[in-house]
Amino acid sequence: MSYKELDMPRRTILTPGPVEVDPRVLRMMSAPILGQFDPAFTTIMNEVMEMLRKVFKTKNKWAFPVDGTSRSGIEALLCSVIEPGDKVLVPVYGRFGHLLMEICERYGAEVKAIYQEWGTVFNPEEVIREIQEWKPDVVAMVHAETSTGCMQPLKEIGESCRKEDVLLIVDAVASVGGVDVRVDEWFIDGLIAGTQKCLSIPSGMSPLTYNERIEKRIARRKKVERGIASEDDRTQNASFIKSNYFDLGMLQDYWSPRRLNHHTEATSMVYALREGLRLVLNEGLEERFERHRYHEKALTAGIKAMGLELFGDPNAKLPVVTCIKIPEGVDGEEVRRVLLDMFGIEIASSFGPLHGKIWRVGTMGYSCRRENILAFLGAFEAVLVQQGATVQKGAGLQKALAYYIEETGESKV
Amino acid sequence: MSYKELDMPRRTILTPGPVEVDPRVLRMMSAPILGQFDPAFTTIMNEVMEMLRKVFKTKNKWAFPVDGTSRSGIEALLCSVIEPGDKVLVPVYGRFGHLLMEICERYGAEVKAIYQEWGTVFNPEEVIREIQEWKPDVVAMVHAETSTGCMQPLKEIGESCRKEDVLLIVDAVASVGGVDVRVDEWFIDGLIAGTQKCLSIPSGMSPLTYNERIEKRIARRKKVERGIASEDDRTQNASFIKSNYFDLGMLQDYWSPRRLNHHTEATSMVYALREGLRLVLNEGLEERFERHRYHEKALTAGIKAMGLELFGDPNAKLPVVTCIKIPEGVDGEEVRRVLLDMFGIEIASSFGPLHGKIWRVGTMGYSCRRENILAFLGAFEAVLVQQGATVQKGAGLQKALAYYIEETGESKV
Repeated sequence: MSYKELDMPRRTILTPGPVEVDPRVLRMMSAPILGQFDPAFTTIMNEVMEMLRKVFKTKNKWAFPVDGTSRSGIEALLCSVIEPGDKVLVPVYGRFGHLLMEICERYGAEVKAIYQEWGTVFNPEEVIREIQEWKPDVVAMVHAETSTGCMQPLKEIGESCRKEDVLLIVDAVASVGGVDVRVDEWFIDGLIAGTQKCLSIPSGMSPLTYNERIEKRIARRKKVERGIASEDDRTQNASFIKSNYFDLGMLQDYWSPRRLNHHTEATSMVYALREGLRLVLNEGLEERFERHRYHEKALTAGIKAMGLELFGDPNAKLPVVTCIKIPEGVDGEEVRRVLLDMFGIEIASSFGPLHGKIWRVGTMGYSCRRENILAFLGAFEAVLVQQGATVQKGAGLQKALAYYIEETGESKV
Repeated sequence: MSYKELDMPRRTILTPGPVEVDPRVLRMMSAPILGQFDPAFTTIMNEVMEMLRKVFKTKNKWAFPVDGTSRSGIEALLCSVIEPGDKVLVPVYGRFGHLLMEICERYGAEVKAIYQEWGTVFNPEEVIREIQEWKPDVVAMVHAETSTGCMQPLKEIGESCRKEDVLLIVDAVASVGGVDVRVDEWFIDGLIAGTQKCLSIPSGMSPLTYNERIEKRIARRKKVERGIASEDDRTQNASFIKSNYFDLGMLQDYWSPRRLNHHTEATSMVYALREGLRLVLNEGLEERFERHRYHEKALTAGIKAMGLELFGDPNAKLPVVTCIKIPEGVDGEEVRRVLLDMFGIEIASSFGPLHGKIWRVGTMGYSCRRENILAFLGAFEAVLVQQGATVQKGAGLQKALAYYIEETGESKV
């Protein structure tokens, strides 16, 4: 049996990741391979670090990708910082808070979770009180929860962590490139981004950054690789990092001018990352955040005009994910299936307590375009009507169309 | 400052990885993104599993990639199998044996290494004697050492492991797709391949396979992810796998019809993997191995005709990596630099005891083409002469040219 060449269907992707990728980024992945120590390639690596610092709004020395999907970056940062017995506070307000707990527990941390109902976020005061009372070594929390469409204000929590000498590690996988993230100004010690969300780059890399406070910890845990270690090296490392692949001390050496061999850098993904970051910076960070808010308004206005309800505390709403309550008597999964099969449009369901209760619509990066919003509103209404739901026919699309025409009077992508 | 679009130089890559990638594979990476649970995408995932089984020559149920570079697959398999205190025998005959030791030690194994001089391999009897005497739980070893250009016969070792009820885990990153690897026939329990070597796919995925013996171990160590676990689940897992990202139990659930959400699959890399495997299978495994041997002969004949010496035991030579002794008085790094700068040709140096002593020329996958061999021999001679080395002028290229014309009388790529 011989296999045929792939011929992928065209999709309109409006999930909270993976999202559509700008054709310019996709095209860059077809560029020929360079050796990982070729000066032409190490120049690209350095440019990627420089661009990441700008996107993260940080002066940190270390800003580079881990070769793996977003959770590889989360695990790399957590396992490089956390030693068995460390006290880690995890404020949980959605699914990905659970993931942070899970990873911290695997690496032997004493984890204390505090919970907030899904669809809301923490009053920073509440987190700060826990920090002052329980005195953790690390606070690990999610900036934007795609599972609930909520975003947690971080600056006051960051200030408190710095004051109490606690490390703050933030999962900003869903927010970086779509909404404002200020690593230095918010006193974030370590932060992980994702490529396949607002940066609109294919999944498979996890850019992260960390400051000197974390670098010091990593340096203390340094393990010299077998075969080049002396007896001294071997005995001094009781607290060595458990993972080789995720050992940020070794990754640092690889991304620094020393270029100490570790893994074989994923050439094509680095090309994509550089091109994706270039497009983000050329668009302008503030302009990009504004674009996400601009299309969010069209989407939410259209959905409300249809007579549907949004889920979650509006004051905590993440601009790049819109959660819609599934009306009584409607089969949410069947709506998703028909949307995909008939219109080629993909939206998401949710997890845990929200399973079967909401749809999630992502408007991230290259997916966040006027034609996508309009295509979705039209198709969504049609499928809901076909499935017997009660909606204001024609209202959603007209509302969004009026918004776009009124707001701009002309094209604005 | 605004960044320019990348314009990569064209290189002839003759290192032992990463190697050149067939333009058809590169082109496939430009295909649009599909959602990870889109039926069009899960079909591709299933095809990838099916193709991997053929390439690995196995009937194993589990054959899928880990999203990361080759060492991510090595770590995933080792950390999912090894529990603290497990006895692991690592026969080391080059750099990547050290890496296996390093990873096993990090995960708490009691490691015993036996060593063979770099440039040679083990007499299987010697390894078997250690297995019988020390009675390890696991034997972890490298099939093909790119650091020395040597290949270890595995079948007798595999037979012994099965007889003694020891698990055999093999790093076949450098061999799969270039030389014969028979997972089932050689009694290999778990095996890791690399994409960026003989499979000629960009770096960033690590395909692996394992059998029921390993699956049972993984099942015993299963950890249910936080938030869906009951109290019972939490207490039964004293031996849980340390890493979340590398937990093969969770990856299994993701690659099985259950499709339990874990990471966000790296869409574009999966496209590349499928296309690369398709090209391998359409070429034919035996035909592909023969092609690698065919060009190896041209290369080695040319090098010898120049008056240079090959490094390593010829009986253990890995067909896809050719090691050349750096002649007395020649600066190996300077030769590599001029080759790259002037001719755009990249070859490799080596590590540890071989640092500064040999060059390594890889002829893997798409890089293994007649025009590459001929371009290298011509350029290599020119650089050596320019650097003042004594070589038989014109002899290398003439020898290879005669071989190609004699052997084929016509084009044979």
